[in-house]
Amino acid sequence: MTFWNRCVAGALVVLAGAMAVTVTLGAQPPVPGPAYTSAGELVRPADFREWVFVTSGLGMNYNDPAPNAPARPQAFTNVYVNPSSYRQFMQTGKWPEQTIFILEIRSSASEGSINRGGSYQTDLRAVEAAVKDTARYPGGWAYFNFGRDGERTAPLPQTASCYTCHTQNAAVENSFVQFYPTLLDVAKKMGTINATYDPNRPARHQ
Amino acid sequence: MTFWNRCVAGALVVLAGAMAVTVTLGAQPPVPGPAYTSAGELVRPADFREWVFVTSGLGMNYNDPAPNAPARPQAFTNVYVNPSSYRQFMQTGKWPEQTIFILEIRSSASEGSINRGGSYQTDLRAVEAAVKDTARYPGGWAYFNFGRDGERTAPLPQTASCYTCHTQNAAVENSFVQFYPTLLDVAKKMGTINATYDPNRPARHQ
Repeated sequence: MTFWNRCVAGALVVLAGAMAVTVTLGAQPPVPGPAYTSAGELVRPADFREWVFVTSGLGMNYNDPAPNAPARPQAFTNVYVNPSSYRQFMQTGKWPEQTIFILEIRSSASEGSINRGGSYQTDLRAVEAAVKDTARYPGGWAYFNFGRDGERTAPLPQTASCYTCHTQNAAVENSFVQFYPTLLDVAKKMGTINATYDPNRPARHQ
Repeated sequence: MTFWNRCVAGALVVLAGAMAVTVTLGAQPPVPGPAYTSAGELVRPADFREWVFVTSGLGMNYNDPAPNAPARPQAFTNVYVNPSSYRQFMQTGKWPEQTIFILEIRSSASEGSINRGGSYQTDLRAVEAAVKDTARYPGGWAYFNFGRDGERTAPLPQTASCYTCHTQNAAVENSFVQFYPTLLDVAKKMGTINATYDPNRPARHQ
């Protein structure tokens, strides 16, 4: 029941413009935003690790811990956003149409090489995405789970918990900017924090 | 005694070329590498958060935990590298001259907004750097600590533990690629892992 199973992808984006790009799987997207197959599946960006990193977490969980949950090494969650949307956000505190976030989920380890305490990142577990496109998706945002090796995927169904959780709990539009320290400062300065956002409010997606 | 106090900046770079750039503090560096003041101090890059993220850790420690160490929230350590050096590493498994790494150290929190477990990133604690420049620095690499707000700083003295620790324990040249999962795969493929590197060897800097 950790957060990536609930597809709380950690960030979002949405609105008009809707320059849907149809590409052959494997080709580079011709614009710096989401690319789709002719069947409307989102193509996993090949170069997302060169995008702008906005934060990482370790073992984040939006639910109270289960009392008898099995022990498992916690996972790191790295959040990246496409560079042009990042630059626009830093100027306006808002996400432009065609923003795409990637959530990279990696296992952790504590003892290896010279490390003796804390946690460092190891194997890839999964890649997820969030896209803002108000013309394409109801509610303006959609969420995707590529798994570990998937190269393309359809949006998760509107019944997935990520949709309501992000709508109800996000700090800026549908994105969890409350967990991106430098972006949160920008949103506060620009006055773009959602009026409904409460930094002390427990999750309302349960 | 956590690792940033020991200036184990988490990554490095070095060699000739030595295109030392003298800039007025506050100006953007004219080349995508380290920039210096006329006094030879490294200028903190204004845009390092738009560089390529290579990993983060939480509470990493290269020493065995002290039995009575005071409790303190663990810190996240985000590692960035300048984009042109990243691209060259992905092709060759080696760091070009003028590579610069930034280590961004941030506090962590567990309960806030909807989060109930694990850790997310909060306030900035410090910014550190490592630069590869064989013409400028003995041993080819130098380490820097800007503190939280510093805009420029001289290299740490050669007696700082980071120098010997990186020389003796790094996986690729003087850089701790053993903690950068995707880069480690590249170095293995390219055959650029240091012959002296042992993934199970305890730290030799003590």
